[in-house]
Amino acid sequence: VGVGLIGGSVGLALREAGLAKTVVGIGRRASSLRKARACGAVTTTTTRLDRGVADAELIVVCSPVDRIVEHVVAAAGHCPEGALITDAGSIKGRILEGLDQRLPDGFPRGVDFVGAHPMAGSEKTGPEFARADLFAGRVCLVTPGESAPRRAVRGVTDFWESLGARVIRMSPAEHDSVVATVSHLPHIAAAALADLASRPQLEAVGPGWLDTTRIAAGDVELWQQILSGNRVAVLKALDEFEKLLASYRAALATDNARELTDLLRAGRDKRRAGERLGRGNA
Amino acid sequence: VGVGLIGGSVGLALREAGLAKTVVGIGRRASSLRKARACGAVTTTTTRLDRGVADAELIVVCSPVDRIVEHVVAAAGHCPEGALITDAGSIKGRILEGLDQRLPDGFPRGVDFVGAHPMAGSEKTGPEFARADLFAGRVCLVTPGESAPRRAVRGVTDFWESLGARVIRMSPAEHDSVVATVSHLPHIAAAALADLASRPQLEAVGPGWLDTTRIAAGDVELWQQILSGNRVAVLKALDEFEKLLASYRAALATDNARELTDLLRAGRDKRRAGERLGRGNA
Repeated sequence: VGVGLIGGSVGLALREAGLAKTVVGIGRRASSLRKARACGAVTTTTTRLDRGVADAELIVVCSPVDRIVEHVVAAAGHCPEGALITDAGSIKGRILEGLDQRLPDGFPRGVDFVGAHPMAGSEKTGPEFARADLFAGRVCLVTPGESAPRRAVRGVTDFWESLGARVIRMSPAEHDSVVATVSHLPHIAAAALADLASRPQLEAVGPGWLDTTRIAAGDVELWQQILSGNRVAVLKALDEFEKLLASYRAALATDNARELTDLLRAGRDKRRAGERLGRGNA
Repeated sequence: VGVGLIGGSVGLALREAGLAKTVVGIGRRASSLRKARACGAVTTTTTRLDRGVADAELIVVCSPVDRIVEHVVAAAGHCPEGALITDAGSIKGRILEGLDQRLPDGFPRGVDFVGAHPMAGSEKTGPEFARADLFAGRVCLVTPGESAPRRAVRGVTDFWESLGARVIRMSPAEHDSVVATVSHLPHIAAAALADLASRPQLEAVGPGWLDTTRIAAGDVELWQQILSGNRVAVLKALDEFEKLLASYRAALATDNARELTDLLRAGRDKRRAGERLGRGNA
């Protein structure tokens, strides 16, 4: 459900690995569905979610975060018994809350949902940028709610691992705190850094600026939804960031070279550890 | 003078383009000089700056920013009449101040200095990472002091352009303000963002975090010198950054989707413009 960069890459990866004979692409826009078909990401397409999931064993909801609850509920209402549903949304707590509100008695018998968040986006959007190896070696956070059956958690874990991802399991709340720090706050910082440069200054940007601000080129509406959807955790991360910047300010204002060195060293060491731990075997 | 990544790349670029028959590598450590010779960046080497510059037409001081004044002064005292001196330092105002203090009567007759800053570093250091095309398509800021003769400015401009760089001329003060915004502040932001992640969170970092924090992996002592040397301009840029982050905070705290969208859009538009303007023809 949703045949953009993520949904398209799921389809390509499944087909390239021979894991699915039929991949149904479900989307609102005929043009995106056409592109997804053209690049081989899906075998059939439909704009009708109810029909698209009618024979599904596994449903991957790759919609924008504001539509995920609605699409999971619709899929749960029309899929066969035994179907497993996962998603690829960047926030988790609010989606589970939304599902609890919409399905107060839980999912229909024999249908389960376990959320996931593959850490493998791009500032590019659309199925034309989909790649079969988008998830290879990348972390995928799998975030079961408290009531998710063990079998469903295992199934969703197996699914993302079959696409090459390294799965890490954590609670939805833990997820939201992690991504606030390693994804959402960096997006704000990148966008703010980019915004500060005047037009003449932009002539002078080098590879450092281009790397640091790259994610700011991402889809604005998508990111507004993500940041708003995770605002409590993002505000907490922003607090910590501002405190740390105040330490840099103090070190610069007092010309304290030793303190500045300590701060830079701490950042460098974490960056190196992140390179080692986060890049994984990719 | 200084055969690290930048000095080594200058040598390789000069030799590959056939612009210099003799490239003398001057450095303190025999091991770096050996590496520079081994990779073909220089034709001869010496640890004695006075001897190394004795027959030089052009001297490129690629020392760490804290040593640049000292090395320019030493080079000016031992080079032939007619020699032109440039540097590759990341700060400019303080270097010119230092030169004014050390050479109150100006440079020796027939010797001129025009500072430069090629925007083409890397978090890697050492001549083993030098590349002949390091400057190709990259911006090089050329920053003549008020007393620099037109001929010298032209000569230094021609030199950096001959290595493939796109030269932009500005005053040293203007330079320091530009790089505070497009290079030094991003370094602080990258290091602070990296520092915020806990060890378990580092397991979950994706390509976005890795890009945004990449420059934080750079040499700590070098960056402390750069930030301290440009502290006034960096503090000003940090002020503006903190103000902009406060706007994000307000938009998130009041759940103002429209304001958040406007902020993200402004950042995205600048990022796109920077990609277009800054990447140049590289």
